[in-house]
Amino acid sequence: MSHPTAAVLTLILACTTPSGTFVSVARGDDVVNGPLTQQYREAAKRIVTATLEGNDAYNKLEHLCVNIGHRLSGSAGLEKAIDWAVAAMKKDGQQNAHRERVMVPHWVRGLESAAMVSPRYVPFHMLGLGGSVSTPAGGITAPVIVVSDEDELNAVADQVPGKIVLFNKVMPPYDPEHGAGYGATVRYRTQGARLAAQKGAVASLMRSVTANSLRTPHTGAMRYGDAERKIPHAAISVEDAELLARLQARGVTPVVNLRMSAKTLPDAVSGNAIAELRGRELPDEIIVIGGHIDSWDVGHGAHDDGAGCVMAMEAINVLRKLNMIPRRTIRVVLWTNEENGLRGGRAYAKDHENELENHIAAIESDSGAFAPRGYGLSCTDKDREAVAVRQMKEILSLIPDSISGLDAKTGGGGADISAMRGAGVVLIGHRVEGSTYFDYHHTPADTIDKIDPDLLSQNVAVLATVAYILADMPERLGTE
Amino acid sequence: MSHPTAAVLTLILACTTPSGTFVSVARGDDVVNGPLTQQYREAAKRIVTATLEGNDAYNKLEHLCVNIGHRLSGSAGLEKAIDWAVAAMKKDGQQNAHRERVMVPHWVRGLESAAMVSPRYVPFHMLGLGGSVSTPAGGITAPVIVVSDEDELNAVADQVPGKIVLFNKVMPPYDPEHGAGYGATVRYRTQGARLAAQKGAVASLMRSVTANSLRTPHTGAMRYGDAERKIPHAAISVEDAELLARLQARGVTPVVNLRMSAKTLPDAVSGNAIAELRGRELPDEIIVIGGHIDSWDVGHGAHDDGAGCVMAMEAINVLRKLNMIPRRTIRVVLWTNEENGLRGGRAYAKDHENELENHIAAIESDSGAFAPRGYGLSCTDKDREAVAVRQMKEILSLIPDSISGLDAKTGGGGADISAMRGAGVVLIGHRVEGSTYFDYHHTPADTIDKIDPDLLSQNVAVLATVAYILADMPERLGTE
Repeated sequence: MSHPTAAVLTLILACTTPSGTFVSVARGDDVVNGPLTQQYREAAKRIVTATLEGNDAYNKLEHLCVNIGHRLSGSAGLEKAIDWAVAAMKKDGQQNAHRERVMVPHWVRGLESAAMVSPRYVPFHMLGLGGSVSTPAGGITAPVIVVSDEDELNAVADQVPGKIVLFNKVMPPYDPEHGAGYGATVRYRTQGARLAAQKGAVASLMRSVTANSLRTPHTGAMRYGDAERKIPHAAISVEDAELLARLQARGVTPVVNLRMSAKTLPDAVSGNAIAELRGRELPDEIIVIGGHIDSWDVGHGAHDDGAGCVMAMEAINVLRKLNMIPRRTIRVVLWTNEENGLRGGRAYAKDHENELENHIAAIESDSGAFAPRGYGLSCTDKDREAVAVRQMKEILSLIPDSISGLDAKTGGGGADISAMRGAGVVLIGHRVEGSTYFDYHHTPADTIDKIDPDLLSQNVAVLATVAYILADMPERLGTE
Repeated sequence: MSHPTAAVLTLILACTTPSGTFVSVARGDDVVNGPLTQQYREAAKRIVTATLEGNDAYNKLEHLCVNIGHRLSGSAGLEKAIDWAVAAMKKDGQQNAHRERVMVPHWVRGLESAAMVSPRYVPFHMLGLGGSVSTPAGGITAPVIVVSDEDELNAVADQVPGKIVLFNKVMPPYDPEHGAGYGATVRYRTQGARLAAQKGAVASLMRSVTANSLRTPHTGAMRYGDAERKIPHAAISVEDAELLARLQARGVTPVVNLRMSAKTLPDAVSGNAIAELRGRELPDEIIVIGGHIDSWDVGHGAHDDGAGCVMAMEAINVLRKLNMIPRRTIRVVLWTNEENGLRGGRAYAKDHENELENHIAAIESDSGAFAPRGYGLSCTDKDREAVAVRQMKEILSLIPDSISGLDAKTGGGGADISAMRGAGVVLIGHRVEGSTYFDYHHTPADTIDKIDPDLLSQNVAVLATVAYILADMPERLGTE
């Protein structure tokens, strides 16, 4: 404990040396610079060097984005992507490549539009929110009342009946200290319709969740919860929200026409795409790595979350090509339906319930392919979590300087892996530089051209290295 | 010549001192710190301080953007904006506020769309280009051939007949040294249809002229020139262009459907909006300041060029409120139809032909309301130009440090004032920091929320100061 950075290696273990023999290394502080540190340092160097020299991640992602496209639950694109991912991993030589059936919600956007019709005609840049009901044919035409948040809504509640409410909650600029301020703004995406309907609104609009816009609407999931009345709910661009807010401030009541033909169809068949790099000694012990294969039905789902999927696919591809087979199994899981249901993550945890005690850790990458920053870890067992964070710091310290700025911290995980929390699995979020993620998030601009191939490779290199060491280290992550 | 920075003041002149008497100041180096320098330094300080303390520019611009909106030639919005500008300047107490009739081209966009229809359906973010013909009803559906430039088009000329050509010319990131690289890319906006038609294309598309995109299409003017066949021509977003180019590179030939119902109607009545701060001694000698009141039919025309208009309107408003009436007249001209015809600029030069010998200088602001950077000057008389640049440097040196980074340089002007070049008028472009201008230029995102009120005020302050000194200095700009 007095030398926490050595914790990961203060273990009795046996590993293959380059000559093929095994060495036992005694627990102790001196091990930091001993043969095992040296071995994993060498392993990290080999993985990182080989990955940065060339890998197939960008090609995979380009195929997913360009040849297949977006992948909303229930769409043909999603099923094509899942089939492709399984086939691609099989072709890479991975084991047990298969699809596991999951039934998913099937919301379809249909044709939609919004426009200001008074004091003049201005077509809005809008996207209906996933799960919203439609408007009547011809749409809903009503005066707009602009509020910045729930408090303001409550203050003008008597003026709301018969109107369209615009939640004009401003997302502050990105702050490296506090992140993007997503939580405070996204609330009006998920809850806006329910809140507005309570006050008698006929429809609700929200300012897109972003600090930067080029008239770019951002979609995402919404929920009616216990709403007695379901009203249509859509996002408009920051610029359109500003126009309505400024007109109201200048004494003009704008009138908007909103047309949506969205439908919720019966649940559709989908699946999680799975493949393994089987462990050489303890194949039943599992490190899960993955992202979600579904996306919103706009853009390419490049950062969200095609990138996370190909990082995991390519991480085990790199290791297999290097013939670096760890003691435990690294299992790639590409979850379906993260965006509007989380059915893939839940199904995985349920279907693999009996295996979860042997799930050492689960890493989800779902924050884009920007510069890698390390990992955030959480575990129901807080002692184990603390040890795991320390061990992760140690592992990251082995990564060559060609990838800098990596660190491990407490807290983090991912939506799809959260269902494994109860089983005591260490949940790990793959962290990246976050200043521009929400510029693209859930927009038509989340496209392949926003991916930097070099940064994508860096992410693959870090993930492959970490997954390899987690799967190979003598004791389970979080124990010492 | 050995003290060029003193040039502007090395003159025999007479000016009002605070006590109301006149002083003559001898030509000589010592004048730099003499009473006149002091007087203009005090004037600059007064103008800048008052402007930055508060002015009406942002309110004017918000009215133009929010209450009136965009202003394409031939539109009701443009005529409303011209009427408003004349009325607003009259209300501010300006003299000779009036409209001067100009007939303008009347192109209307109508309904339009573009979508990839094979290998899958992807709706594009597109804008038809101003002046384009329509497609037949139902559109044109054809395979796409992607080229980066004219050389590549020539190299694949035999494959072009029957296809839609995409000019995928990439605009490099902004470079402070070389600017935005607009010229090399915009060529395919103005010339693309003619070039593609020559090779047998059925329609032409272009990658929007921008280095940054959030699926943002950029419109602008195109010309058929001597084309024997007029084919429809539209811009698509960078992301859509990338999709087509990458599919082609991956061996897939995408098919696109382009629908445009654009029409060119008979010329429409429009006008230049004009008002004056009449000079106290030499009212027939004129400093013109202005921008163009028309805009594209998307966004608000906030940076392009609502900002330039309100800078000029507010510059004389600030001076009048301060009761700083210069010797010569400062005339605000808000030209119509800069975007797709330049009829306003040409009409002004023609209608005021007899006056042009007394037009000392014309300043156009048409680069947005970013941080002011000074002025670029040009004149057919190169000796006069050199003196004018020197004098402008001197004038800018009088502006208080609260506005920094100002300089004068050779070269510059503006589209609307270019028709005055032949008359020997010193043409002056109002320069601003340029790194993001082309992100918004001709897009639905050129909206009021992109304007920084403080920077707008700085621009007003600089323009008011420069216009005042140019109008008040004893000799004409460019003479000594």
